[in-house]
Amino acid sequence: MTKIAFIGLGNMGTPMAANLLKAGYQPVVYDIVPHTVEQLAEQGAIPAANVSEAVRDADVVISMLPASQHVKELYLGDGQLLAHARKGALLIDCSTIAPATAKEVATEALGRGFEMIDAPVSGGVGGAVKGVLTFIVGGNADSLEKARPILSVMGQKIFHAGEIGAGQTAKICNNMLLAIQMTGTAEALNLGVANQLDPVALSEILKNSSGGNWTLNVYNPYPGVMEGVPASNEYEGGFLVDLMVKDLGLAMETAQASESRTPLGALAEELYRGHSTAGWGRKDFSSILKAIEKE
Amino acid sequence: MTKIAFIGLGNMGTPMAANLLKAGYQPVVYDIVPHTVEQLAEQGAIPAANVSEAVRDADVVISMLPASQHVKELYLGDGQLLAHARKGALLIDCSTIAPATAKEVATEALGRGFEMIDAPVSGGVGGAVKGVLTFIVGGNADSLEKARPILSVMGQKIFHAGEIGAGQTAKICNNMLLAIQMTGTAEALNLGVANQLDPVALSEILKNSSGGNWTLNVYNPYPGVMEGVPASNEYEGGFLVDLMVKDLGLAMETAQASESRTPLGALAEELYRGHSTAGWGRKDFSSILKAIEKE
Amino acid sequence: MTKIAFIGLGNMGTPMAANLLKAGYQPVVYDIVPHTVEQLAEQGAIPAANVSEAVRDADVVISMLPASQHVKELYLGDGQLLAHARKGALLIDCSTIAPATAKEVATEALGRGFEMIDAPVSGGVGGAVKGVLTFIVGGNADSLEKARPILSVMGQKIFHAGEIGAGQTAKICNNMLLAIQMTGTAEALNLGVANQLDPVALSEILKNSSGGNWTLNVYNPYPGVMEGVPASNEYEGGFLVDLMVKDLGLAMETAQASESRTPLGALAEELYRGHSTAGWGRKDFSSILKAIEKE
Amino acid sequence: MTKIAFIGLGNMGTPMAANLLKAGYQPVVYDIVPHTVEQLAEQGAIPAANVSEAVRDADVVISMLPASQHVKELYLGDGQLLAHARKGALLIDCSTIAPATAKEVATEALGRGFEMIDAPVSGGVGGAVKGVLTFIVGGNADSLEKARPILSVMGQKIFHAGEIGAGQTAKICNNMLLAIQMTGTAEALNLGVANQLDPVALSEILKNSSGGNWTLNVYNPYPGVMEGVPASNEYEGGFLVDLMVKDLGLAMETAQASESRTPLGALAEELYRGHSTAGWGRKDFSSILKAIEKE
Repeated sequence: MTKIAFIGLGNMGTPMAANLLKAGYQPVVYDIVPHTVEQLAEQGAIPAANVSEAVRDADVVISMLPASQHVKELYLGDGQLLAHARKGALLIDCSTIAPATAKEVATEALGRGFEMIDAPVSGGVGGAVKGVLTFIVGGNADSLEKARPILSVMGQKIFHAGEIGAGQTAKICNNMLLAIQMTGTAEALNLGVANQLDPVALSEILKNSSGGNWTLNVYNPYPGVMEGVPASNEYEGGFLVDLMVKDLGLAMETAQASESRTPLGALAEELYRGHSTAGWGRKDFSSILKAIEKE
Repeated sequence: MTKIAFIGLGNMGTPMAANLLKAGYQPVVYDIVPHTVEQLAEQGAIPAANVSEAVRDADVVISMLPASQHVKELYLGDGQLLAHARKGALLIDCSTIAPATAKEVATEALGRGFEMIDAPVSGGVGGAVKGVLTFIVGGNADSLEKARPILSVMGQKIFHAGEIGAGQTAKICNNMLLAIQMTGTAEALNLGVANQLDPVALSEILKNSSGGNWTLNVYNPYPGVMEGVPASNEYEGGFLVDLMVKDLGLAMETAQASESRTPLGALAEELYRGHSTAGWGRKDFSSILKAIEKE
Repeated sequence: MTKIAFIGLGNMGTPMAANLLKAGYQPVVYDIVPHTVEQLAEQGAIPAANVSEAVRDADVVISMLPASQHVKELYLGDGQLLAHARKGALLIDCSTIAPATAKEVATEALGRGFEMIDAPVSGGVGGAVKGVLTFIVGGNADSLEKARPILSVMGQKIFHAGEIGAGQTAKICNNMLLAIQMTGTAEALNLGVANQLDPVALSEILKNSSGGNWTLNVYNPYPGVMEGVPASNEYEGGFLVDLMVKDLGLAMETAQASESRTPLGALAEELYRGHSTAGWGRKDFSSILKAIEKE
Repeated sequence: MTKIAFIGLGNMGTPMAANLLKAGYQPVVYDIVPHTVEQLAEQGAIPAANVSEAVRDADVVISMLPASQHVKELYLGDGQLLAHARKGALLIDCSTIAPATAKEVATEALGRGFEMIDAPVSGGVGGAVKGVLTFIVGGNADSLEKARPILSVMGQKIFHAGEIGAGQTAKICNNMLLAIQMTGTAEALNLGVANQLDPVALSEILKNSSGGNWTLNVYNPYPGVMEGVPASNEYEGGFLVDLMVKDLGLAMETAQASESRTPLGALAEELYRGHSTAGWGRKDFSSILKAIEKE
């Protein structure tokens, strides 16, 4: 059985590791928060006291961390991952980080004889719990094939975006587009309602016309139109505004570095930043409707 | 057989009337351009020399005109439609115009004993030719039921958006959202390509992720990704930038009148206006990618 | 003594007419609100019961109305101004309206043998009371010279912007720029304060650097930086947000009609519209700072 | 006589050091480009072969570098400035960099017993040559007083913005506002001209009205309105678009870190980025008019 190390046991990492357990793997797990390690140990995982203990025997190392600096520190920091993992191990970073950082870390890893892919996910906490995440992978096709059986335990769809870093770039492009169409959908629904349309009827029309998009299919931002979505639960749960702000920040950084124009992306970034500033940071990102709506 | 008058024989009106002919109706047709009248007469339509001649015996009058002022003039002008049509006739305006104008005209028509619905379409010239337009209808449900057999000859989907004017409002909301997601999709694809992603692979990922939308399904703006779309034919054909500029102008007018916020809509309006200014007015609206792309 | 008719006695028109009285003129005054007519009659003006009575003997007619439709109705409506004024009279419209309407009205007036200029003002109610308004004039230079002695009683500066309608265009350009730099100044001050700068010190630096503009000189939007401005009086008084929304609407209309790009203008229009929507319509326009500020 | 070290001899640093020479100082100069060192040595400066040689005897060290990473490397890099300068020396960084980097470097410097201020400049190459720069200073008031006689040789105005880093923050706020009002002025002038106004007459009106700002006073972006400005010389010289892009990037970074809203700033950043992308990076920043103008 493949020996897996799993590092980073937050809201996403914990259910992902739990799905590995359910599939019969016995991952060695580590996080800087001891409580999360204990929790998974009770479910059968092998607890590790630090990074070196976690990775030293692993065939595959999976990491799931909050941001670029944490990934950089984990892989390249003094006495960290690359110093202790076995040569030839396959490293899979599932964090959403800057493409430039992903490339920097992977270049170092490849240079030291590891295999590495970036494999950021979409699907949120719900998708992680149900094991239906989407993985967007950058890196060597052979490495992806080695990773596939393990990724398939945690997710449903796996896309190969291109070389190292391409997973991050594609994830960022997707989330920028998502922010734009969520905001646009909120504007369109609000405009209709302000002119006496019924939001349910209008949503149905848009969904079946050229305005159709993912948010109208499964994540309608207007309260009461769709059951079981954050908009119908006071925007609790879901994908936090502050996480969208982080991803849009990465998109703007990437756009600036590559001199790419992103007019709607830049305005969406500013709108989400303002929405967080107004106190909505810990609510679902479909709450951007409240920034549009008449008070 | 229901007697139909059809007024306005432009790029949209001509194939719509032709489909009525194919279905066995014999519409009386009129346009200020005599040539278009003759063309349809050759196919079996009854030519009329003016509005009053066209409408005087009609059970149903259909109009398809370029803009608000033309509709207002046709229905309310001296010696025009409302003065000559038979009391009780059903009036169907398929033009895309300001909701306020649609309400003004219909209120007058209803007051004079007519039935009236606004029924703007989506689907473009191609949809008109194939008889697969989508009708977005505002007005009384009974009037819509009377119109349904005739609309079904020219289109495939019929939505009831609400009271008089609601068809126009919903159409405008849809097209504003369409402009936003077309531009957002162009930004996302361009950002990916500028960072070494393959546009085909990225399109596939976005389409199957939360960035999915109508443009990625059937109208990809990146040249070469999809066959048979304007982007793969130098942006010829399709839905003209200048028509999108017109619809976005109506959206902004409606937003201002109802004090509705539309931050991305306002910026999209400005971007499409600028794109037209730069000489792209007669190209397909997916060419907004060229306004984003590095030169 | 030149016989003057003054039509439109709102917040601006009343003090303007009062300044004519102080200068020794005896204007015939009219408004649809009888109370305002009586008020000026008590100060010595000649009250008129309707438009025709007001204008029939006038050498010069001054109008000061809220919006395009009022001006159009006053001048071109049935039995209105152009039908009753003396041929050869000089017509001065001080309202801020669409340039297209100004041209339409003036063309009709000139065609009927009148002289006409558009002379919108800046300086607000305070400037009207003190007689220090700025007039931005469109029309024939000779007509402006005839108007100058009278305008000088109500204002301090008189600019000749060009032909008929040019006064309106220049006013609109100015107010669009004003909205942009007021918002930009609010953003810069807010950004500095959020990073521990003192707003007084920062205002002083900006005022004396390349960021310097009119708002920093006399109308600082940050509470407490400057005495006697709306920002230091809870944004009471001054130039209302709703009036700025109206002027920005005219700017967008003009930009669309002339296919001119106005990216920052379009966003400023949307921001002010949203600010009004959020309940700030009756406050001073420098309160846009509150739309920027962290809550 | 105070012993001065001057590090960074680019387009700005060279004339600044030359003015020190003219005032009778004999600075020790260093740059990684040997040619620039030789050039100043011919004018009387003392050439240094490396940083440690340049700073070891200096009472005052002045640095003028392109960006944050260069400043960080110079001060904190292995065997660099802080390791070789004399304890108690006054360090003056005139580079425009991220406020966060300025604070990080100064905190380290103060901790090691140096005095330090950040003193970014405005006024461009022309101002550097003529010795009329504006210094915007962050840091201790006593340190500023020690620096004042030396700064006065290179500049005309000196502002104290606040504590360490405040000079950078104020500079960034100013340049963001400058970009906004330059773009807004370009939009207003272009809108007027597209509606038949004369740009000279309109500039005069705006300058004397509430639209008045620094660009209209001394840096009009419309070709031919003002003599001796880049707009009248094909946008050659002046302040490069690419430098404005850099400063706007710093502004966005600072806004994101402090969760400050900057809607017009974000759009101006995107517009200048797009303008650079379109090939205008090496032209003056007033050329943003060409991004607005009809082709």
